[in-house]
Amino acid sequence: MTETAHRSISREQAAIEQALTEELVASFAHAEDRRLRQLMGALTRHLHAFIREVRLTEHEWNTAIAFLTEAGQITDDRRQEYILLSDVLGASMQTIAVNNEAVYGASSATEATVFGPFFTEDAPEIPIGGDIAGGAHGQPCWVEGTVTDTEGNPVPGARIEVWEADDEGFYDVQYSDGRVAGRARLASDAQGRYAFWGLTPTPYPIPHDGPVGRMLAATGRSPVRAAHLHFMVTAPKLRTLVTHIFVKDDPQIAIGDSVFGVKDSLIKEFHTQAAGAPTPDGRRLEGDWSRTRFDIVLAPADA
Amino acid sequence: MTETAHRSISREQAAIEQALTEELVASFAHAEDRRLRQLMGALTRHLHAFIREVRLTEHEWNTAIAFLTEAGQITDDRRQEYILLSDVLGASMQTIAVNNEAVYGASSATEATVFGPFFTEDAPEIPIGGDIAGGAHGQPCWVEGTVTDTEGNPVPGARIEVWEADDEGFYDVQYSDGRVAGRARLASDAQGRYAFWGLTPTPYPIPHDGPVGRMLAATGRSPVRAAHLHFMVTAPKLRTLVTHIFVKDDPQIAIGDSVFGVKDSLIKEFHTQAAGAPTPDGRRLEGDWSRTRFDIVLAPADA
Repeated sequence: MTETAHRSISREQAAIEQALTEELVASFAHAEDRRLRQLMGALTRHLHAFIREVRLTEHEWNTAIAFLTEAGQITDDRRQEYILLSDVLGASMQTIAVNNEAVYGASSATEATVFGPFFTEDAPEIPIGGDIAGGAHGQPCWVEGTVTDTEGNPVPGARIEVWEADDEGFYDVQYSDGRVAGRARLASDAQGRYAFWGLTPTPYPIPHDGPVGRMLAATGRSPVRAAHLHFMVTAPKLRTLVTHIFVKDDPQIAIGDSVFGVKDSLIKEFHTQAAGAPTPDGRRLEGDWSRTRFDIVLAPADA
Repeated sequence: MTETAHRSISREQAAIEQALTEELVASFAHAEDRRLRQLMGALTRHLHAFIREVRLTEHEWNTAIAFLTEAGQITDDRRQEYILLSDVLGASMQTIAVNNEAVYGASSATEATVFGPFFTEDAPEIPIGGDIAGGAHGQPCWVEGTVTDTEGNPVPGARIEVWEADDEGFYDVQYSDGRVAGRARLASDAQGRYAFWGLTPTPYPIPHDGPVGRMLAATGRSPVRAAHLHFMVTAPKLRTLVTHIFVKDDPQIAIGDSVFGVKDSLIKEFHTQAAGAPTPDGRRLEGDWSRTRFDIVLAPADA
């Protein structure tokens, strides 16, 4: 950990500050739950280390309290500013990282990324080759691939849940009419194969009219998420995978995904097809469309 | 910093986690405000270090989001759960510590402690020897002392603001009738002396019917503050002092002040006087009373 330079303090002063941290850690020593004791002790040590390292001013402390308070005021059933805050600080993605350790085998397990706030349980079941759009607007996109384990064995009957925003950047749960669109669930076939029609993903900003958006603006950061399509894949004895795929030529990848969800291994070629080009399943489309491939490798459940 | 033991992770996994932290820190590199860049970079490093050290689970992350959300819902004009949270984690006291470095001279400067949420600007002016109670209930207490600088010179005309809870643990701002009680301002005399009638302080709990109170209960901690009397002392060219005095025999000091405000140097003898014992200023009191002494030493403003 890099220590940022700050003016030196006396040995007595350092001892006073250190003693306060130790007093706090000790105050949690009587928690019956051993894990809670560990969490509160570590949280306290890191929080105090931050305050001491930056020599936090009382004005800055007041600003932090006001920030958290405003985040609370803007949070409701449809808006979760604390999740946005965790996301833009990379805390969500770091939590994903520590809970989804990389697994190597004949093939490496597909990497996980952030879950996001837009999953719902009520997505319609579709057959392989079905359409998830449900009326959501955007360029049609044929997505196909396989589900295997890290030894290369096909995983038949894996549950694949997919969800995405429309071409204006809205998920169905953000529509005012309550309809379900841009999401579905399907199962891999006996050879572990799957395919569906979705929409070519497009970039969209996270809600940025609140304190988190102001912080991003003040630090010169973009609120825009790189274009992506969400996957959650579940199968017996294998680790559940929550991930996205990203679009290779999306300029937002270079600018920076606002929640740091991009992994190189998750960036896929989306091949644009001219209007009239024959489709994989004989579907007739008026305009242009795209196609991509995403082969999914699931880690063992106990990895 | 003590590293808590956790199961070892692969070198590749450690590199992935470290790279994510570095990506985040780099994302703040374009902030125009240099201090903001420093603060966000350090906050990110410490937050990520916490998540990595404890191997935070996704369930625990969800619990943390729910905690912050509930804290937001309970916060209003009269209740500030985020300040309580900062207080019980010692973050408020650590911020006080880094902004009020110890100063040594012929006499050491009086130590600072937490400001708390109950100060108001509208306290009545009283003469030396006046009464701050204003109808608040409690045992009368004669408080006297001097204000000097660290070289031992008297500070005449120092502005001394004092405030405290009544013997049921309530400040006037918590009364429903809006009256001003238990607070006043006065000035030291030509020899730097001051004196007033207050109330013998009594312990009281911080508001503990919200998420912070639940966290204290889960970790076996008391929500009670050690009995105290607040001071804010201001004089030209000297550092403003925000502090309390505590009561030597208060059992809560051993149990633990819930916001960690106690410093040994701020614990004072409160001498109980029987009913009828002559008072310093000839005032006639029906019942028993107490007296204490608090000599205040102000640091130079530029210390």
